[in-house]
Amino acid sequence: MQPDTLLKQVSFIKEIDKIKYIQRKTKLFNSDRPENDAEHSWHLAMMTIVLAEHADTPIDVLKVLKMVLIHDIVEIDAGDTFIYDTQKSHTNTDSERMAAQRIFGLLPKEQADELIAIWEEFEMGATNEAKFAKSMDRFEPLLQNTSNNGGTWKEFDVDYKDVYEKKKVIQAGSTSLWNYAENLLNESVDKGILKKTKN
Amino acid sequence: MQPDTLLKQVSFIKEIDKIKYIQRKTKLFNSDRPENDAEHSWHLAMMTIVLAEHADTPIDVLKVLKMVLIHDIVEIDAGDTFIYDTQKSHTNTDSERMAAQRIFGLLPKEQADELIAIWEEFEMGATNEAKFAKSMDRFEPLLQNTSNNGGTWKEFDVDYKDVYEKKKVIQAGSTSLWNYAENLLNESVDKGILKKTKN
Repeated sequence: MQPDTLLKQVSFIKEIDKIKYIQRKTKLFNSDRPENDAEHSWHLAMMTIVLAEHADTPIDVLKVLKMVLIHDIVEIDAGDTFIYDTQKSHTNTDSERMAAQRIFGLLPKEQADELIAIWEEFEMGATNEAKFAKSMDRFEPLLQNTSNNGGTWKEFDVDYKDVYEKKKVIQAGSTSLWNYAENLLNESVDKGILKKTKN
Repeated sequence: MQPDTLLKQVSFIKEIDKIKYIQRKTKLFNSDRPENDAEHSWHLAMMTIVLAEHADTPIDVLKVLKMVLIHDIVEIDAGDTFIYDTQKSHTNTDSERMAAQRIFGLLPKEQADELIAIWEEFEMGATNEAKFAKSMDRFEPLLQNTSNNGGTWKEFDVDYKDVYEKKKVIQAGSTSLWNYAENLLNESVDKGILKKTKN
């Protein structure tokens, strides 16, 4: 081990504390208090542990955990983008890539390279692990919004069709979770907490 | 899979959201805002990923991650106990055991049994994984208090000797982290942010 290995790691550990100040649009369960990125990432990690058996293909749970734990760290520099924001795309913006280089770059090189690669794998969404991690990322706010009488769907006047398109990502990771999610969406329309006006 | 497996898992996922309201005494880095248990657990998971190479013995990183992610879930029922509270011991109280049974018991039986066993392994602190997980749990507030000009040490007038006794747990998981931690404690005395009056 290089003598400055631990110093670099501690500097990274201190820097990522800032994620606790990044607020998401989605609120906690049965609550009007916004969730922050650390809480969100913890919850996705717990969901990964509990729901891994629903993955359609065998997954490396450790890798999925790393993905969900680090996936929002870039938002320390790049900020949170609301998924139904029509002006700004969430995916692979230059500012997120620069943030990944700066923040993971605080670590010893080998470790920085590993975590940047895992973050990029998540963003690409092509591997079994990335697909399952993305299922988790879509599934949590669905549960939150249904517990909050429509939550951000109502707050930002989002249509069923747009929600459905975003949530379909769940299907790529898990058929059984998607069946459950699709039912929840239809129930939400029936309950009047999700509007359906577009075809 | 039993048909109600997913329903039980979702009910657990909703219940553990409450951990986001459990406030610790320790504050965020360079901050006076208390940390909550979800943020704390996320940070320990990130530290595990980044610091695993410092473990004195080979560790199963996936198991340590499960330990640190779930270790405070019992506080949903049992509440947070401050480590320097002289009236109440943090370890293995009856209320924590009952909380583990109730909360993990929301899951399908096999999964509940697995997570209760992992939580108990952490509490016992005997295995390599539990020792390393406990190192993480002691190391984070040390970094926080030094970043906060003494933090809870000053706020609750804690002596170097008592801090040293609690922090020595780090040594059982990692000699190199303990060397770093011991230096930080001595520096803190020198800087006047940790008092040394007892022998």
